This record gives sequence, structure tokens and C-alpha cells, in this order.
Amino acid sequence: MMRPFSKLLSFENAKAIMLKSVGRVERLEELPIGDAGGRVLAEEIVSKMDVPPFDRSAMDGFAVRAEDTFSAGKLEPVKLRVAGKSLAGHPSGAVVKNEECIEIATGAKLPDGADAVVKVENTDVTDDIVKVFTPVHPGQDVSKRGEDIKTGQCVLRHGAYLDPSNVGAAAALGIETLSVFERPIVAIIPTGAEVAPPGANLQEGQVYDINTYTLSQVALLNGCLPKPWGIVLDEHEALRKALLEALSEDLVLFSGGSSVGETDILVDILRERGEILFHGIQVKPGKPTLCGKADGKLVVGMPGYPASCLTNAYALLAPVLREMARVPPENERHLDVPISRRVVSSLGRLQLLTVKIEAEKAVPVHKESGAITSLADADGYIEIPIDTELVEKGDVVRVKLFRPV
Amino acid sequence: MMRPFSKLLSFENAKAIMLKSVGRVERLEELPIGDAGGRVLAEEIVSKMDVPPFDRSAMDGFAVRAEDTFSAGKLEPVKLRVAGKSLAGHPSGAVVKNEECIEIATGAKLPDGADAVVKVENTDVTDDIVKVFTPVHPGQDVSKRGEDIKTGQCVLRHGAYLDPSNVGAAAALGIETLSVFERPIVAIIPTGAEVAPPGANLQEGQVYDINTYTLSQVALLNGCLPKPWGIVLDEHEALRKALLEALSEDLVLFSGGSSVGETDILVDILRERGEILFHGIQVKPGKPTLCGKADGKLVVGMPGYPASCLTNAYALLAPVLREMARVPPENERHLDVPISRRVVSSLGRLQLLTVKIEAEKAVPVHKESGAITSLADADGYIEIPIDTELVEKGDVVRVKLFRPV
Repeated sequence: MMRPFSKLLSFENAKAIMLKSVGRVERLEELPIGDAGGRVLAEEIVSKMDVPPFDRSAMDGFAVRAEDTFSAGKLEPVKLRVAGKSLAGHPSGAVVKNEECIEIATGAKLPDGADAVVKVENTDVTDDIVKVFTPVHPGQDVSKRGEDIKTGQCVLRHGAYLDPSNVGAAAALGIETLSVFERPIVAIIPTGAEVAPPGANLQEGQVYDINTYTLSQVALLNGCLPKPWGIVLDEHEALRKALLEALSEDLVLFSGGSSVGETDILVDILRERGEILFHGIQVKPGKPTLCGKADGKLVVGMPGYPASCLTNAYALLAPVLREMARVPPENERHLDVPISRRVVSSLGRLQLLTVKIEAEKAVPVHKESGAITSLADADGYIEIPIDTELVEKGDVVRVKLFRPV
Repeated sequence: MMRPFSKLLSFENAKAIMLKSVGRVERLEELPIGDAGGRVLAEEIVSKMDVPPFDRSAMDGFAVRAEDTFSAGKLEPVKLRVAGKSLAGHPSGAVVKNEECIEIATGAKLPDGADAVVKVENTDVTDDIVKVFTPVHPGQDVSKRGEDIKTGQCVLRHGAYLDPSNVGAAAALGIETLSVFERPIVAIIPTGAEVAPPGANLQEGQVYDINTYTLSQVALLNGCLPKPWGIVLDEHEALRKALLEALSEDLVLFSGGSSVGETDILVDILRERGEILFHGIQVKPGKPTLCGKADGKLVVGMPGYPASCLTNAYALLAPVLREMARVPPENERHLDVPISRRVVSSLGRLQLLTVKIEAEKAVPVHKESGAITSLADADGYIEIPIDTELVEKGDVVRVKLFRPV
């Protein structure tokens, strides 16, 4: 039978150890800018150009010499002769001289000689004569060359997360490809004779593999690429072989159908090859979680029961995957609402309790920790601290959301 | 020169019209369960089995007949003979008789004859005799067959979003493939002679195409697949040809370098082929946004200036893309903080003002609406209502976040 846990670590300490021990991905790849969204930049982008690359009009109207308009008024407009037209992408070759102007579109290059734009609303045009009813100051409604980005300016730092606006900033410079970090690969190894792959005929005592699919999704949602293994029997030689192969990936996850038994074998194998960082966490569910390091890679034995496995994948593993992938922490999305009923917790363990939001209350949906439906029905989870035995009905709790409610 | 806007629609009305007019994707595809995460289920999943498919132990311990333990106490343990072993995936063939028990692991099948489990902490074993120190009731620490999912139960509804726990619920049933909705395809058409593709040598008056890349990312982040077009000149025949081709996709986005000019041509072309839903919104930036419908598809002329385009992609377009893709609305992630300085807004237009979070304050980073860096530097945006002219320094504003801060 299984050994007792020698000592349990606090949840926060376990997370801190994992974050400190995990390696950040170093491999790079070069991607076309259109494929680089959601990735992490592995170079510094310094602009070789001014953006905009020329003075341009911020309005539809007329490019003028500002001094020509100083005497303009509602009753005494200034009259200017239209000497040409500057459209976006079709600049005018003309030079604006005294008492002249050039019709100009938003985004079009400001013609030489002009230093301001009078917007069309403040003018009246007859044939080639424009009446200007308000004075403009030099620079009015002109976007100056380099106003957005200047030559030599650092536009994106090494390690920047390529969200839409950062992709846009690189596009503004005409960059075709970006050097980004590869997504780290997470080996996901389901273990145990009780686990069967999708579509298999279940033998007596068997259940279908769930954790491979939930862990794969969590890996994808946190900047990594999952690499599912076939099911491995919880025997020393089979587990050892799987571990040695999987250590060529960036992080190794084991997860079986039951809660303690096979992690004992894993502990032995990890000790042979590397070291145990911790075994056992003061958290419910998730107590049997195992973490070690071998060949410089983190190896995690996730709880086998699907709901325990997934809850701990959200709460414990996701931040570690993001650290490894160099992607920023997820925005914590939470909701503070009263709880619908009294909940009794255990002193000495942090409890992660799945809840559903109904009528603006947090309704516990806790079932046995094997029940995947306790998560499929849940909108999020609450954390009941280690020193809290009782949450009274109506107490306001913070729900960390899995999904929008 | 451009025509004036006939009437401006409120931002909320514009969004409501788009949400009502957009078609939801109907095309289906069949995906292996491991590839179906993040997609939308196009079938109802009704369980053909019980989960767990057998009574199983929730603890490591001994399977017993509960009545045999009723007289057990700390000082007067009951003694039971160990008649076998049931491990996860290796059920025992033995039947538990009176005054017998079977060693059992978490997740293992409860042997016939037994109706409860005594956890190992409450026992003491010597050779094949177990001392039981506490009574258990029938069903104690047993997960009953079907406790998680029952045969005939609807596990996932048509239209369910396949987040990790929903993928897990399908995996629990051993399902190999899922029928999901295809991701809708969004045609993205940059327009105007002033726009150049990445890597091109800029001609006088030209800028690089930004909107294709920001809009593609927004499409991907909201459940759609972007299909970027080449740059199209803002001339009637070229735009008409591009529109007709693009109408074979699910939604068409046009966006040019300047703000009004080319949308006039688009208005004419859309009128020929379909109808205009609106042209002009009471929002800053984003006033020139155009929306029409042709061949049953929504066609949107996004503002040309990159920051205007992306701000409106987040605020106006993203909910429409999600509706089309059938994915749930994004969790609104916001932060309520004081603003760092007084901001003057325009009565009669909703203002979307980009801000950065610094020292727990919202610091406006507004530049000219062409400035992509106003977004790359921003952490989110605030909405200044249509009837608000002034936000005083220190007023608490709600920042809708682009990214974690």
C-alpha cells in the first residue's frame, strides 16, 4: 500500500517552488507578422523610420499657410485660390504660395509651403476659390512626421507579448517577419491500467482517459503546445521509459486514474534521475500532487481524479506554463458574490471549491473529486483559506471565473 | 470631396444593429476530441453509459460489509480477514463475505459483497488481519456507479463552448470525435493607394498596412479565421470586384488609410448590391464606420486610422464576431481607478479613450487617431459617455483592459 506523505507543503509555497524551478523557453523561430499574434517577441524592435513618414493632414479640408488665415472671421472670410489636390497616396506636386491652398484628404501628405489644414466644415468653395471662416495656427490639424514613432525609437521590447496592438506597432514599420520564442512543448502522460483511450471498449474496472484532454486544453490556453503520450502502465519500467523519452520535451505531466498509488513509483524514478521538489500539498482537492526536476526539466505528477486534476491545472499549473512560455499572467477574472449555503472546510488545507453562479450567488457544485461534471457545471472556483473551517451562508466569496457568466 | 454624414447613430444602436444583422455560422466539421477545444459544439451529447461505470472506492483502504464494522471502536477494533486486493484497473474477482475485507485502492472497483470502504488511516494491518477502529455506514467512501453521469443524461448541450471542462465531460464518455461549427471566415480588405504591404519600399505619401494585421488578430481572438486580401485601390471597379469575391466569405471588413473618402465609393457599391444599415456613429474615434449587408453577409467599413480601427475592433466588432462564431461573450476584464488628469470630451459622441495604468491611476495615452503607439502603449480604454463633457482629475473611471496589468 502507499506510503504516507512525509510533509505537506502549503499551496502558495508549492506554486512558488514550481515558478522558481521551471525554465523559460529559449528556442526561437521566425514568423511572418500575420502569424506572430499571441507569441512572445525574441528581439528588440527599433524603428528605422519615422511614422508617419511625412507631415500629413488629420482632416479633410484645405492645406494652407496659417498666416494667410489669421484675419479670417465668420463675417469676413479670407479667400484662397485652390492650386491643386492632395489625396491619400496621391500627393500633390504643387507648392502652396501666399493666398493659395490645396484641397487635401485625411491622411494625405501636406504639400510643400503649407503648414496647417483648415477643415472643410470651416470653408465654403466656389469654383477654385475657397472662403475660410476661421483662422488656424501653424501645425493645426497636421500630424507631424514622426509624431507616432521616431527613427531610432524602441517600439517593442524583447519579451513583449504580441497582442493586436503590438502586432500593429510592428506592422507600422513595414516589418515582414518577427523573431519569437517557440511555444514550449508539454508531454502529457496518462498512466494506469484503469485508463482507456477514447473509443476503446472498457474492460471491467476501467474508465476513459479525461486528463489528457483537459490538460492539453490548459496547455494550449497558456501559451504551450501539448504532446499527448499513449497510456502508460503504472509499472516501474514502463514509467521510467516514458519519463526518459518525455524529458526531451520542455515539461512533463503525469496523471493517472487514482490518487496515490502510482506516484510512489514516480517518486522512485524521479529520485533515480533527478530530485523531488515536493510531494503533497495542503490543498483540497490536489493533495497528492508531486513535483520533481530531472535533466533540467520540471516533472509534475498531477492528481489522477479528473476534477482534482483540472482544478489544480487552473490554479497551480497554468501560472507555471505561462512562466515557461514567457506569456503574461492571465487577467484574473473574478466576481464577489454571497455564497448560497454554509460550507464546512478542513483546517490545515486550502480548499478549491467549484461553484456555479445562480441568481448572483455562488452555489457549490462539489461532487466527488472524480466527477468531471462538477467542473463542466461550474463557472469558477472559490478558495477557502487554510485557517477557515466554516463559510456561512451569505458570506461574500471571490469566485475565480473559468468562463463568462 | 466627401459627402457629409446624413445622420449619426449612437454607438449602442450601431452595435445592436450589427448583432441583429449578423448571421450565425451554420457549417459543421467533425474534429477529434483533442482538437475541439475552443470550438462550439454542434450536437447534443447524451450519455450512453454510467460514469463511473461501476461502484468504486474514493479512498485507499479496505472494502468491507458496513454492518461488520458497526461495533468497531478506538479501543475495541473489529478484526477482518483480508481476502484479496482490488487495484485501479485490476479488480478483484473475490466476493467479500462476513468478517472479510479486500484491500482496495482509490478508483478501484468495489468488489461484490462489499458496500463501504474503511480508509487506511482508520486501520492497522498485521499479516492478513486488519483491525478497523471506526464504524462506517453503507456507501461510505464509495463513488456509486453513475454518480457523475447517468445513462441517458444530457452532458453537453448543442451550442456548448468547448472549454477544458466541457472537453473533459465529452472525454469521460469515451467520445472520439465531436461535431463542431466551423470558424467563420472574415475577409479583410485593406484599401487605398496610400497603403503599402510589409517590406515594400514606401512611395511618397504612403504608409504601411497596419489594419490587416490588427484586424486579423482580433478575428482570431474572437473565434474567427481571418482571410487577408491584397491591397485594393479605392476606385469603384476595384472595390466592387473585391467586394463580390469577398462575399463568398462570412463577413467582409474594409479598411483604408484615410477616414472618409473611400467609404463614399463603398456606400455606392453596397447600395448596388445590397443595403446600407448605417454610416456614421456617435463615437470618437470611429465616426466614419460604415455597415451594410449584401448577399446575406455583413460588410463593414472600419475607420482607416489604425488606432481608431483597432479601438472599434475591440469595442464594436469583437462582440459581432463572437455572435457570428457562436462563442460566448468575452469576460469583461475591467479595473476601476482614478484618472490622472482632467479630460475634455465632446458632447454628442461617446469617446473611447485609451489609457495606461500607472501607480493605480488611469493615464490617458491619446495621440492622433492614426497613432498605433497610442494602443501599443495603452492597457485598455475608458468610455466617456455621450452626455459628459468633462472628466475631472481624480474621478474614478472604469478601464476595460486589453491585457493584464
